[in-house]
Amino acid sequence: MAGSIEIVEVSPRDGLQNEAVLVSTEAKVELVNRAIAAGLRRIEVTSFVNPKRVPQMADAEVVLSALPKDKGVSYIGLALNGRGFDRALAAGASEVNYVLVASDTFSNRNNGAPTLDTLTGWAEVAAAARAAKIPTSITIGAAFGCPFEGEVPVERVVEIAKRAAEHGTDEIALADTIGVGSPADVVERFTAVAKALPGMRLRAHFHNTRNTGIANAYAAITAGVTVLDSSLGGVGGCPFAPAATGNIPTEDLIYMLNRMKVETGVDLATAIEGAKWLEGVLGRQNPAMLGRAGIFPPVPKVA
Amino acid sequence: MAGSIEIVEVSPRDGLQNEAVLVSTEAKVELVNRAIAAGLRRIEVTSFVNPKRVPQMADAEVVLSALPKDKGVSYIGLALNGRGFDRALAAGASEVNYVLVASDTFSNRNNGAPTLDTLTGWAEVAAAARAAKIPTSITIGAAFGCPFEGEVPVERVVEIAKRAAEHGTDEIALADTIGVGSPADVVERFTAVAKALPGMRLRAHFHNTRNTGIANAYAAITAGVTVLDSSLGGVGGCPFAPAATGNIPTEDLIYMLNRMKVETGVDLATAIEGAKWLEGVLGRQNPAMLGRAGIFPPVPKVA
Repeated sequence: MAGSIEIVEVSPRDGLQNEAVLVSTEAKVELVNRAIAAGLRRIEVTSFVNPKRVPQMADAEVVLSALPKDKGVSYIGLALNGRGFDRALAAGASEVNYVLVASDTFSNRNNGAPTLDTLTGWAEVAAAARAAKIPTSITIGAAFGCPFEGEVPVERVVEIAKRAAEHGTDEIALADTIGVGSPADVVERFTAVAKALPGMRLRAHFHNTRNTGIANAYAAITAGVTVLDSSLGGVGGCPFAPAATGNIPTEDLIYMLNRMKVETGVDLATAIEGAKWLEGVLGRQNPAMLGRAGIFPPVPKVA
Repeated sequence: MAGSIEIVEVSPRDGLQNEAVLVSTEAKVELVNRAIAAGLRRIEVTSFVNPKRVPQMADAEVVLSALPKDKGVSYIGLALNGRGFDRALAAGASEVNYVLVASDTFSNRNNGAPTLDTLTGWAEVAAAARAAKIPTSITIGAAFGCPFEGEVPVERVVEIAKRAAEHGTDEIALADTIGVGSPADVVERFTAVAKALPGMRLRAHFHNTRNTGIANAYAAITAGVTVLDSSLGGVGGCPFAPAATGNIPTEDLIYMLNRMKVETGVDLATAIEGAKWLEGVLGRQNPAMLGRAGIFPPVPKVA
């Protein structure tokens, strides 16, 4: 098992995007600053997509311009085409993430075209990023199952990863977008992609929809994954859609990793504090559990 | 990994014991019958302890006498001394579980004596059980950490398991009573006990207090554990103590095992139905997630 794991904090983008409450730009900036204070050094801060489709991300440029540039933090912006990439570059994103969705039906709904057709947009972004010397990552969404098509074959995920890698990328993430995966799926899929693309940095993105998110994170680590996405408080669930739940909670993940002596560079108490603050912003209880249960063993109070 | 796992349904005892609502005998019997209908074949139904200390279990004899005897189900009764064992035997319990607590402070509070002193009670129960040809199991509580003493050394857990095994038992469970363990702890502790007691059947008991319960269950399976405790709905948390949470939810566990092609003999839809019914009895939302998220892939409706 790896001695250290890199955590990508996704609450400002994937977390907030699905929340019913429209969060102010000021609160988004404070959220990123609180993540930085906790020691998080890679943060998915926003997405450069059509603000009419995703109103929560309409202030992408304003958020990025307000973030500190001297903390050694990599700010990830999401883009779905060349135009989105240009916006991310102009706004000063440190790296760009492009999303491919594994099943055609879901890809049509999310990206407006079947999966393999969206490789054209990725080719554009990859070329532009290379020219601008901006690191990129690919996320393969619905890589563990599709809400419309059901099972997604492992071979399909491997094929998409290989096709995406042809254009050059620094990292490939497999995302369990709807939270259906099991630890066995995680080991199988990451092992297959690692075998097909030796040396590629792999990242895992889990939602805790069916209570398997943290188990999947553990399984990913045992399979050699060294980068994990999570969100403070486990935010991301829409309160009006009971089956749509958030990312795995950063503080719960860090707790587990701390207990396993896996380094993350994140201060657990500060992460819990940030998540509690976010609870106030969203006006509802976080799905994360550590803030309620407390750190073990208890941190001694200084007299 | 094992091709099949035995689930011990603990909602009627460990689950209900910590609930604030006093559950009627009739509802307890229905709960057990619903568990049986779902395919569960080992069920911790009650405990034979002082009803003044645990009022929820005051109807132990009545519950046991009302359960079907022709379903091939093993009904587990908990006992903490010879008197409890005699009651369990008279009431017709199929097997008896004895609890030792790993740390002295917690053992004093729970069992009225330091850990090793409570081996006397176990010796009594073990001898009586052998004479009556009743299978027994030992649960080592707080085996992953103590709320009063903090860390519990692995060596301590191994020592207790060895001392307990000297009196003869069919199974030893390690219980994460306060939900602090990580998958690495699980692998380490079960591996150590298995090494000290070759051939002993090992069982794992997890609470999902810090979101690691299902990850711990997965880790236990990878470490060779073949018996897991869980409760329908994940009940067991006291609504007045936000940090006290329930057992890992049976339906969430079964979902994960189904997705990993590990057999349990449990019908997921019936388990979810039972958990939903229990939600009505307790008057609050279950911590379990599968009932809200739904089975994946969706079960086709028969036209």
